[in-house]
Amino acid sequence: MKVAYQGEPGAYSEQAGYEYFDSPEMMPQKSFDDVFTNVSSGKCDSGLIPIENSLAGSIHLNYDLLLRHELFIVGEFYLPVRHCLIGFPDAALSDIKRVISHPQALGQCADHLRELGVDTEPVYDTAGSVKILKSSSERTTAAIASKRAAEIYQMKVLQGSFEDNPENYTRFLEIKLKPVKPDSKAKTSIVFTLKNQPGALYQALSVFAAGDIDLTKIESRPLVGKPWEYLFYMDFVTTQGRESAQQSLDNLKEYTLMLRILGTYPRFQA
Amino acid sequence: MKVAYQGEPGAYSEQAGYEYFDSPEMMPQKSFDDVFTNVSSGKCDSGLIPIENSLAGSIHLNYDLLLRHELFIVGEFYLPVRHCLIGFPDAALSDIKRVISHPQALGQCADHLRELGVDTEPVYDTAGSVKILKSSSERTTAAIASKRAAEIYQMKVLQGSFEDNPENYTRFLEIKLKPVKPDSKAKTSIVFTLKNQPGALYQALSVFAAGDIDLTKIESRPLVGKPWEYLFYMDFVTTQGRESAQQSLDNLKEYTLMLRILGTYPRFQA
Repeated sequence: MKVAYQGEPGAYSEQAGYEYFDSPEMMPQKSFDDVFTNVSSGKCDSGLIPIENSLAGSIHLNYDLLLRHELFIVGEFYLPVRHCLIGFPDAALSDIKRVISHPQALGQCADHLRELGVDTEPVYDTAGSVKILKSSSERTTAAIASKRAAEIYQMKVLQGSFEDNPENYTRFLEIKLKPVKPDSKAKTSIVFTLKNQPGALYQALSVFAAGDIDLTKIESRPLVGKPWEYLFYMDFVTTQGRESAQQSLDNLKEYTLMLRILGTYPRFQA
Repeated sequence: MKVAYQGEPGAYSEQAGYEYFDSPEMMPQKSFDDVFTNVSSGKCDSGLIPIENSLAGSIHLNYDLLLRHELFIVGEFYLPVRHCLIGFPDAALSDIKRVISHPQALGQCADHLRELGVDTEPVYDTAGSVKILKSSSERTTAAIASKRAAEIYQMKVLQGSFEDNPENYTRFLEIKLKPVKPDSKAKTSIVFTLKNQPGALYQALSVFAAGDIDLTKIESRPLVGKPWEYLFYMDFVTTQGRESAQQSLDNLKEYTLMLRILGTYPRFQA
């Protein structure tokens, strides 16, 4: 099974793939666009894309690509982001004077870095920082990346759980050419725009309240150049069979200008 | 007037500061945390932080910092992100074989880069890519960053509006120690959690529908480790005087466990 993901080997997206799929062949891509294109063309069986991070927010670009391509969400996975401080196999934590990584990773480990009293230097990528370190042969420098990046480059984890806030996770979506039909404990993701009238969102939500349907996500995104118009991203739980959800979606159409169902898929169970 | 921002000189945050304030003294900081700390301590008069980008989404980290610090939102500003292709003053567009920048900027210019048929290489920062280029003396390499970054490093804009999607903007918030009291055309930003009961969000929105108050943002953010509990970010327009908004907020408290008003401030007028 070939799975397209964005990033280098050792990226958190690759790690998510190994945890989510049974023995996947993970296929690195330069961009998210390439992930979608390779799934659309059938070159890859699935794509695995990050859609939101608990600290960094929703990745609107991937919502844009979901709207642009005719693919379906068929599954979801939550990956806890566990940063590791990585050095040479013969290095010790006390040797480290300088740490390199992606600025976001350096920021997410700021307290730990301050305690160590080290200099920091930003580079373009977490997995890439281990690659750079390896080729530098600098024993007093360490990198911050996933455990898997340490394994790939045969380097040593000097300290695990190096992130300051353990509540850092990324939600990934599996995308495919064909939709799935999950039995129960399913989630549905939709995108819609509303007619421009007072209380439109309130009325739209009444549809779900009436159907006793729990929302797990709601997010407005302004449409640039169109003041007062928004895209809405919504996820809701569909446990009581597909008929009830279908009824709510039919009712929702009374209030929407555009409604796209991105997929109904099994809910992630931790 | 001293304004703290995160990033290097030439960063988009710095540019936003020069457009938003009258002759500010822009003070670069290593992290968003440092921006908040310098405003809290009075070392800087204001902070300017990005809160959402039209392609990359909300910056949850800055919402976390708004909740952690006792500062107030006193203004907002929307900056169109205009990427420039930047080279040496004696370079021509046709010479360029390789382009360096932050991966997000490279991704946002992917179509233009493909047309040029150049190699790309990710670096940690947009403004930083111009700094790196300058010190490399490589005439066939270009960087992608703001126009201001080109000015700072005395380099040339080879092509302006290099971004593929012109609908790329970042919303910034000005934060201060003391709140302001805008007269009209104001916006209020709040954060709340809801009591865990069916249809809670629908009921909460009824308060705003009843007060005829327009929402300009709503976003749920899952609380990690607490399934079914969410933080809600909401912005709404307060034109009809502060009494009506105050009444709605008082009514909202019936449904919330936590409610924090981040600030009421003049709405940005393009």
